[in-house]
Amino acid sequence: MKRLIDILDLSVQELDQLMDVACDIIAQPRKYSHACEGKQLAALFFEPSTRTRLSFESAMLALGGQVLSVSGAGGSSVSKGESIADTARTVSCYADIIAMRHPQEGAALVAADSVSIPVINAGDGGHCHPTQTLADLLTIRREMGRFDHLTVGLCGDLKYGRTVHSLIAALSRYEGVRFVLISPPELRLPDYVVESMQDAHIPYEETVSLEGALPKLDILYMTRIQRERFDDPALYEALKGSYVLDTEKMALAKPDMRVLHPLPRVNEISVQVDSDPRASYFRQMFNGKMMRMALILKMLSDSGEETPVNNRPVYRHLTCRNPKCISQTEQELQQAFYKVPGRREIYRCVYCEQQAE
Amino acid sequence: MKRLIDILDLSVQELDQLMDVACDIIAQPRKYSHACEGKQLAALFFEPSTRTRLSFESAMLALGGQVLSVSGAGGSSVSKGESIADTARTVSCYADIIAMRHPQEGAALVAADSVSIPVINAGDGGHCHPTQTLADLLTIRREMGRFDHLTVGLCGDLKYGRTVHSLIAALSRYEGVRFVLISPPELRLPDYVVESMQDAHIPYEETVSLEGALPKLDILYMTRIQRERFDDPALYEALKGSYVLDTEKMALAKPDMRVLHPLPRVNEISVQVDSDPRASYFRQMFNGKMMRMALILKMLSDSGEETPVNNRPVYRHLTCRNPKCISQTEQELQQAFYKVPGRREIYRCVYCEQQAE
Amino acid sequence: MKRLIDILDLSVQELDQLMDVACDIIAQPRKYSHACEGKQLAALFFEPSTRTRLSFESAMLALGGQVLSVSGAGGSSVSKGESIADTARTVSCYADIIAMRHPQEGAALVAADSVSIPVINAGDGGHCHPTQTLADLLTIRREMGRFDHLTVGLCGDLKYGRTVHSLIAALSRYEGVRFVLISPPELRLPDYVVESMQDAHIPYEETVSLEGALPKLDILYMTRIQRERFDDPALYEALKGSYVLDTEKMALAKPDMRVLHPLPRVNEISVQVDSDPRASYFRQMFNGKMMRMALILKMLSDSGEETPVNNRPVYRHLTCRNPKCISQTEQELQQAFYKVPGRREIYRCVYCEQQAE
Repeated sequence: MKRLIDILDLSVQELDQLMDVACDIIAQPRKYSHACEGKQLAALFFEPSTRTRLSFESAMLALGGQVLSVSGAGGSSVSKGESIADTARTVSCYADIIAMRHPQEGAALVAADSVSIPVINAGDGGHCHPTQTLADLLTIRREMGRFDHLTVGLCGDLKYGRTVHSLIAALSRYEGVRFVLISPPELRLPDYVVESMQDAHIPYEETVSLEGALPKLDILYMTRIQRERFDDPALYEALKGSYVLDTEKMALAKPDMRVLHPLPRVNEISVQVDSDPRASYFRQMFNGKMMRMALILKMLSDSGEETPVNNRPVYRHLTCRNPKCISQTEQELQQAFYKVPGRREIYRCVYCEQQAE
Repeated sequence: MKRLIDILDLSVQELDQLMDVACDIIAQPRKYSHACEGKQLAALFFEPSTRTRLSFESAMLALGGQVLSVSGAGGSSVSKGESIADTARTVSCYADIIAMRHPQEGAALVAADSVSIPVINAGDGGHCHPTQTLADLLTIRREMGRFDHLTVGLCGDLKYGRTVHSLIAALSRYEGVRFVLISPPELRLPDYVVESMQDAHIPYEETVSLEGALPKLDILYMTRIQRERFDDPALYEALKGSYVLDTEKMALAKPDMRVLHPLPRVNEISVQVDSDPRASYFRQMFNGKMMRMALILKMLSDSGEETPVNNRPVYRHLTCRNPKCISQTEQELQQAFYKVPGRREIYRCVYCEQQAE
Repeated sequence: MKRLIDILDLSVQELDQLMDVACDIIAQPRKYSHACEGKQLAALFFEPSTRTRLSFESAMLALGGQVLSVSGAGGSSVSKGESIADTARTVSCYADIIAMRHPQEGAALVAADSVSIPVINAGDGGHCHPTQTLADLLTIRREMGRFDHLTVGLCGDLKYGRTVHSLIAALSRYEGVRFVLISPPELRLPDYVVESMQDAHIPYEETVSLEGALPKLDILYMTRIQRERFDDPALYEALKGSYVLDTEKMALAKPDMRVLHPLPRVNEISVQVDSDPRASYFRQMFNGKMMRMALILKMLSDSGEETPVNNRPVYRHLTCRNPKCISQTEQELQQAFYKVPGRREIYRCVYCEQQAE
């Protein structure tokens, strides 16, 4: 496998294998401590993110590999107007694998298309953050022992939360999953995500009440509600307490429910909850490192044959209007859209996946 | 030992042992070059400091270990409002030991209280910087061969100089030490430090004259006087030359006096002094790396039983007013004070050690 | 060899040897993968440059060495007014070799004069960037198989382009070289460079026409023309297309001409040219890493005897007026000039090499 842009680039079977390797790394870390000796991972973080960057770097070092680290865009060639493609090509002269975080959606895809070394999307704008989903999935597996027949609550910012969309997409592939979507009306799950759940006949309910939802849940996935998402600050102020998890609310939950959160949290989970055995969010961080180790190992070991993820036709007659899409700024990059199978005639930008108008 | 927040966390005996190990590392570096193989140190520098950060990183690499590096706070989870506790807990999922520098006083203590991996305070605001004192102590030991019966001059900014307060505290534990405090009146040693010297019956004198003090000194510890410490810039201008060490003044000093400086220096030691064999400040940098190596080794080797440093009672009826104290901003952190034994009824904040009003 | 400040610090023979080692590293990378084990390179990048910094770091890691990384000046001791000399001396207590990039001209020389460990100039203001020239030279050798009797076109910003000046100086030492200087009149090669070519009896022509020059060239060295170099933006707009290389222009070139570019490029080479086998600029990046590996190896292996590069007399009766020269700001640094042999009575600043008035 040469690229991981979106969690769905991995089949259910490939995910299982990755998680098996991660569990073996947990059981026998020494066995892997020289697995990537002599290899270099370039952590290209054009948008800073201490947690994710350190997780990747720690993972590569724990495999006996080495790290080249870029954090922040200021002053690098990027600010001189160098294209993502050129930056990636240059770095591919030095490193064996790239993990890239960038504020523009589609940046990781452009990088992957420019080089022959493996590329991992460590977060591209609001689009995808597949290795977070890997952390989330391993946590569910280790804590619940299964993926089927789970009732999964997602709480907070379901509208902008890329980790929420990604987890829903990943879990939708398992039998018997049901989702409980808990958010203020302003931050409901976007229609297109709801529609794909409907098309896949996945049971879900939408509610504004976290208390009401808690007793039903096997998993509670908390996200942070940000003030900036609300036009009316008073509305934010009125709402925010309803989506805070504390010990009082935890008393309503099942004895073996698990609480996940991609972190950082600000106040949406009270510190009092941390000592509850059901609080899994720090184990989730550790699992993220393990999955990144398994992923790096897989991508560096693969024979180099790239299994094409998509053989879908590309349409070039449209223009992407998303100001955060890499197609706005990347030199000599052609517009490209794919057609969404199903309902209406919908085209999505290949890079950022926003809908064409 | 699980945490080093303040130099006094180490007993005189533990300091001796550390210095013995540092001297062995100097004598036989190869013996230690794989001592921390497979281990990772996270250098969390939320306040940049090239010298201290590189010293820690170089130390860990020289032990065969690896480094995760964060420098500057901009853009990391910190700026998203994440607590020190959460940041430390996350990093403890990746690294085996943390060295933390932070602009807020008490930050390292909060971090140490949140994780089970060892934590080293690499500087918390104006509070403590214990590894600088380790560098200073090893330098005195290597250059003078002893700690007892030394006359130690401290010159410059004695009011705000945390390295000065720390060195005084450390040296006060040896027999026969006497201090000569050389500063402008505006930057005299704070009363509470003077008082603890008095309570410990340590001879000291205060003077404004560096020339007058020089002939008496075994050690001269220079610090930088900063313009910003003076309300009246004209006063600074009038004063600053008096506290500059040059070859002319060095002629007044004993033939085996040693000059120390935590660096960086701007102009308070003339470059002409550098070639004087009594100038120890660059050897001091090297000693700092050696002591950090010994410290990291000790903290990673210790069995994990934490010897509680303080069993003193905690008082919560007061509020810390220090704007730089971590207790101002750390989520859900309770106020905590300890009572100072001795003179008056004084309470100090557990985090920043400033006096409650 | 203890310092590389300027490409001419290396003799033709030393360059040949370096390139031989680089080619051996390319052929047998495993042979070198532990050559610098236990050694540390400090990459001191006070002016950020992702490409050059990663190239040095990747090179050191590929030799089995370790890296201490500083990128950006903000907040470090540098901003507290610490001298380059002190910064270098401190870092020399930790690392075995320094690679330094600094916005001020002469900074690397000051660093090299202050320490006994090897120092590599990774770019000092507009003055020199010798390791870029090493990359350029290895590329010419690997692509053309020789240095003699080449017709070398240099296109774009010949006035400010330090890599252009450096390459001309290096290639002037080979037999039968001829230069074709292609630029707008505003960005012609500076007179002093033209004069040294004349003094060395090297054939050259100046032209504004890239198309006209192309059929004659063995090597085309492209550089970026920056808007900021023009007082009149309209002039820039009128000019810029003339110095863009595209497939149409490539059709005019010899079948085995090679295109080099120090990168980053913005639009002066069209992406369409990338797939032309004559486009060598990404191979050039890889060659740069190989030459840096050879250079680091050489500098760390040398016995420590410094072959003095210059025994020329120093004149101190003048003052450097270059605002970017390190002599403006470096504490207690004396003015120093050397006399230029030849034509007129010209003195150049030892640090930045600008002409005294």
